[in-house]
This record gives sequence, C-alpha cells and structure tokens, in this order.
Amino acid sequence: MTELGIDALCVSVGPDLPYLTGYEAMPLERLTMLVVPRDEAATLVVPRLEAPRVVEQPGVFSVEPWDETDDPIERVVARLGDAAVVAIGDQTWARFVLALQAATPDARYRSATDVTGPLRVVKDSDEIARLRAAAHAVDEIALSLREISFAGRTEHDLHREIVERMLDAGHERANFAIVATGPNAASPHHDPGARVVERGDVVLCDFGGTMDGYCSDITRMYVVGKPSPEVRDAYEALTLAQQRAVETATVGTTCEAVDAAARSVLADTGLDRWFIHRTGHGIGMDAHEDPYVVAGNTTVLEPGHAFSIEPGVYVPGSFGLRLEDIVVADRDGPVRLNEAPRDLAVVA
Amino acid sequence: MTELGIDALCVSVGPDLPYLTGYEAMPLERLTMLVVPRDEAATLVVPRLEAPRVVEQPGVFSVEPWDETDDPIERVVARLGDAAVVAIGDQTWARFVLALQAATPDARYRSATDVTGPLRVVKDSDEIARLRAAAHAVDEIALSLREISFAGRTEHDLHREIVERMLDAGHERANFAIVATGPNAASPHHDPGARVVERGDVVLCDFGGTMDGYCSDITRMYVVGKPSPEVRDAYEALTLAQQRAVETATVGTTCEAVDAAARSVLADTGLDRWFIHRTGHGIGMDAHEDPYVVAGNTTVLEPGHAFSIEPGVYVPGSFGLRLEDIVVADRDGPVRLNEAPRDLAVVA
Repeated sequence: MTELGIDALCVSVGPDLPYLTGYEAMPLERLTMLVVPRDEAATLVVPRLEAPRVVEQPGVFSVEPWDETDDPIERVVARLGDAAVVAIGDQTWARFVLALQAATPDARYRSATDVTGPLRVVKDSDEIARLRAAAHAVDEIALSLREISFAGRTEHDLHREIVERMLDAGHERANFAIVATGPNAASPHHDPGARVVERGDVVLCDFGGTMDGYCSDITRMYVVGKPSPEVRDAYEALTLAQQRAVETATVGTTCEAVDAAARSVLADTGLDRWFIHRTGHGIGMDAHEDPYVVAGNTTVLEPGHAFSIEPGVYVPGSFGLRLEDIVVADRDGPVRLNEAPRDLAVVA
Repeated sequence: MTELGIDALCVSVGPDLPYLTGYEAMPLERLTMLVVPRDEAATLVVPRLEAPRVVEQPGVFSVEPWDETDDPIERVVARLGDAAVVAIGDQTWARFVLALQAATPDARYRSATDVTGPLRVVKDSDEIARLRAAAHAVDEIALSLREISFAGRTEHDLHREIVERMLDAGHERANFAIVATGPNAASPHHDPGARVVERGDVVLCDFGGTMDGYCSDITRMYVVGKPSPEVRDAYEALTLAQQRAVETATVGTTCEAVDAAARSVLADTGLDRWFIHRTGHGIGMDAHEDPYVVAGNTTVLEPGHAFSIEPGVYVPGSFGLRLEDIVVADRDGPVRLNEAPRDLAVVA
C-alpha cells in the first residue's frame, strides 16, 4: 500500500475478503466491509446478525458489528480517517461505492486488485494442493459421466446430477454446471434447459465449484453414439490446440502467446473463426481471476500462476466443442491439475 | 428519468436487468450492461459468448456484443454520449463503476434504484401470482419436513435435502437453505455445518429460491421431541409478535410501524433484547429489496408491496427462533402468501 500510495483498503463481497480474513461476506444489501488503513489495525464492519459467523483473528482484524438502524457507511468512513487514496474491492456493490464517494468527497478511489491481485495471483504450495484436490474431485465426475446414459435425459436433469455429484464429492458449493447438447453447445455459456439428448448428440459438460475455498473448473465432451466426421475432425484439431497451448504455458511466456498458440492450431484448419472467446482465465478462490489468457495480455507467467486452458469451436446451429484443464505454471514446466481422459467419450 | 433529471440508465448484474429485459447477466469479470439513454433506444452491451443467450426484443433494446479484445467500457461510454447524470445499477461491480467514472469525468453517478425501485416495488397481479406460486412450493416443503427424521442427521445433510426439494418443486435456483440446530440457531444466518441433530434440539429452517423469476422465502421451526418451557414460551410470544406485525401491515401503514408492532409484543415478555434484526424485507425478483420493514423506514405501504414478516429470538449459547411468511399489502388488508402451519412442529 505504501509503494502504491494507497492510504486505505476497503474490501467487501468477493474472494479478497476470505483471502485476507477467512470470512466470506454474503452479497446482500447489508454492507460487510473490511477497512485496512495503511498504518492502523484492520476492522471488519459487519451486520450484527452476521457477526456470530465471523471468527475473529486478534492481531489481524477486529470486528465492529452494526445494528439495523445504524449507517454502516458512517462506520467505514470513521475508520478511513482522512485517507486521500482508497482502494476498493472489485466486486463491491455500486450502491456502496457511490455512498462512500459521497461521504468522502476529497478521496480518490481505485481498484483494490492493485493491492490484492499480486498477492492472490501467485499460488503457494498449499493453494496449489487445494486446487489439485478440487480438480481431482471433478476429474472423477468427468470420468464417471462416461458410464451413465445421456440419451433421453434433459439438459436440466444432467445439470442437476452433476451439481449433486460435485456436492457429494466434497465441494462446498457448485458454481456452475453447463450441459449443452447438440446445437445448444454452440452457445458457450448455454443455460441447461428442457432439450432432451438424442442419439448422435455431442454434449458439452463444463462444471466447477468451490472446495476448501478453491475452485474447480473442467470441460469434457461426450457423444451419444458415433460422432460425424466434421465433429471428429474438429475435436481432433481442438485437442491439438489445447495440448499446444498447455505446452506453451511455461514460466516466462506471455499470456497472449499461450492464447495465440491455441488459436494458430485452429487456424490451420480454418476453425479459428469459430473460437469466439479467450483461451483461459486464472483460477483460485475466484472461478475467474488474473491472469487471463487472452490476446493483448502481456503478463508474463510466473511460477504459481494457475489458469484454465480451454479453447473451443462453436458452429452456430450445428455443434459446439470445448476442452478445458486447469494448468499451473511451474519452474519445471506446465502442470495440468486435471487428469480425466480427454478423448471424445462415446456414451449411451 | 426526465422527472429525476437522469440522462442515462446503466444496468448490469442483479434483478433490474431481467426486470427490464428478461435477460439475467452472470456476475462475471466480463461486463454486461444495458444502457438506456433518456431520449434514445436502449442497447445491451454483452460479451460475444453470452450473446446467444439473449432474446432480443426489437423496440425494447438492441444487442451489441463485444469481443474478448474489445473494451466494453468504451462501448458503454459511446452510448452514454454527453450524459451529465448517469444512474447505475446498485449491484454493478465497483471495478466497472470506477472505470466508467474515469472515462466520463464530467458525469455525475447516482443509484439506478431511483428509477427502477418505484417500478419494481409495486407488484402487479402477475408478479403476485408468481410470488404466491413460489411461496406455495416452499410451503409444501416446510410441511413435508414435519414427516422426516431430524435426529442423527447433520445440518449440512438437511440443508442438501431442502435444496434438492426446492429444485424438485420447480425452483430454477435455490438461493439459500439455513438449517441451524440447537445453540447454532442463535446465529440468524448460521452456515449449515457438521453438527448432528440431537434429541431435544430446536431446529430453524429458513429457505428460499427463485421460481419463474420470483423469490420464495420461508422460516419454520422444528423440535426433536419436547421443547423446554423456555422455548415453548418464547415461541408463543414470537408467534404472537409475527401475527401482530402481519395484521399491522395494512395499506397506509409505515414500514417502521410494522416493525414496532412485532417488537412491542416481544417487549411484553422482555424478549425484544434478543430480536437483533429488522422485522422483514421486500421480496420480488430479488430475495431482499424494498420495502424494508425496519425502524426508521417511513415508507408507507401501498397495494402490491410484498415483504417478509420474520421476527426472531436469539439467545446466545442456547437457542434461536424465527417465524417468517411473505405478506402482500392488499386493499382488503394484508395477505399472507405462505400457508404452511406455523406451530412448533414436533419431529423425530
């Protein structure tokens, strides 16, 4: 904070708060905010009825509960003192940002990620162990899906089953479970719906949750019966693109170079025009965080960076394919945390 | 907007967007924002990979997808033109608020709720029908819980069962399912954990989700075996407090008067000191929204206001009780949407 010229840090909903305190705030209209003045003790301003859930950490932060008729903004402002530059958490609700700005008209606000980002982006061995455990939990699910029947079931029904399997496997929270069948998979973030899986359908399953505070995220592809030659060829190119991108993700490489590696393999067969999103995103306590594997991001990979590599091919009206693993940049080279088989699984 | 002197409305994550467009944005680092200039057509600036999920509504809004290497803030700013006063959605992430402010240094930002709040707070008959359907779905669950065994099961296990029952009952999303047993219920928003229900435990179940776009929220109490005289007496007072607050919630009454009604009943037996939160919150597309039933809120109830009435008694280290129904202020008097029995249910 001193280096950045930041006088106070204000952190609310999102992963910065559990990263710093072990406590996660509910995204509610009642403000929870950790105030960290540069030279003073930190205080967690928290609604009285949430306070029993907070585990106080003497020497790290104290707890200041506010009652229903108190104004939590006043509490935060009192702790800010005469801070001229305030760094505020990226996911803090606009209503609280505007209220703080109105109450401190002389302060300048900037992103708390300037402070917390460099801390959170490099995962230590304990964090990597948690990411690996979460990855292995969803690996098992991806593997077990090869044994179930897809045909005749709705996307929504399969979605439910995957959510339940994540919870059964020890995730405290299922963050998403995309099940996109046939032409629906051409929409990368398809909402699972009432469509019934038919013979010949290609099915995209992309799911992840939070386990022991850290996120999982995996995409595997299934086909009911035999894939068409077009799908088979596209999946072969996609697999190669993903492999090439993973191999490229060495310490010292830029994020954009990793993105380009995947894209150039797909370009060889003209499929790059159907690859409409970035190659990946960082992952940790948040499902999407720095570093982003995207054109224009010149961030250089460091040991402990963790991110997805997930190229895709989306042909509108026809089919969609994606293959995703979580990868850690290690001194000895890129390490895939996911180990479930990556072939196009033939299912019933 | 003209009356309020607002030049443009910017709406992102949260219920304002589906209220206005039918489309709900995922809370992600990729910006989705509906820009509504006062005198021009509305535009939904949306990530390219989310765009297939948007159902365009010609005449209501057009869709402007942005690619991974575009800057969505530039797109929004271009649509804002020279707007001097911009109203921004309450749940918009701070990072986007700060980026917009930096890109439009002469604009003044205020809360979009000034525009959308008065629209959303009064529910029409279709919205009340949806709230009622969601309420009846959780009523059935609250009723069915009277038939199951609690003893020997963990809070987490019961939590899972309630979540699954909400999804089975037609909710598209389970928003929360608090199961707080014995002394844990003294924490109003307890996180269900590993505690095993014992004989004699009083169990608080507070759960809700989203069904057909509208929220449910109910709290019922269960006891394994026979309640202690202290619990029995407190629950009797609580039931009366809830009943009195519901009766008070007539059109023309202030929210704070409804809160005071519940509080004064508990004060008769000295239990008000354990009632550490407001009496209720509005409900609609959001689980918590205006009007809040809290001291200091002089908002006068109007026909179509929908809100929870949920007084509680929380005795640290001992037990917690809460009783909650959703209530609509109707011209003919307050109408409870929840109909599940309100007695302290004796369970196995």
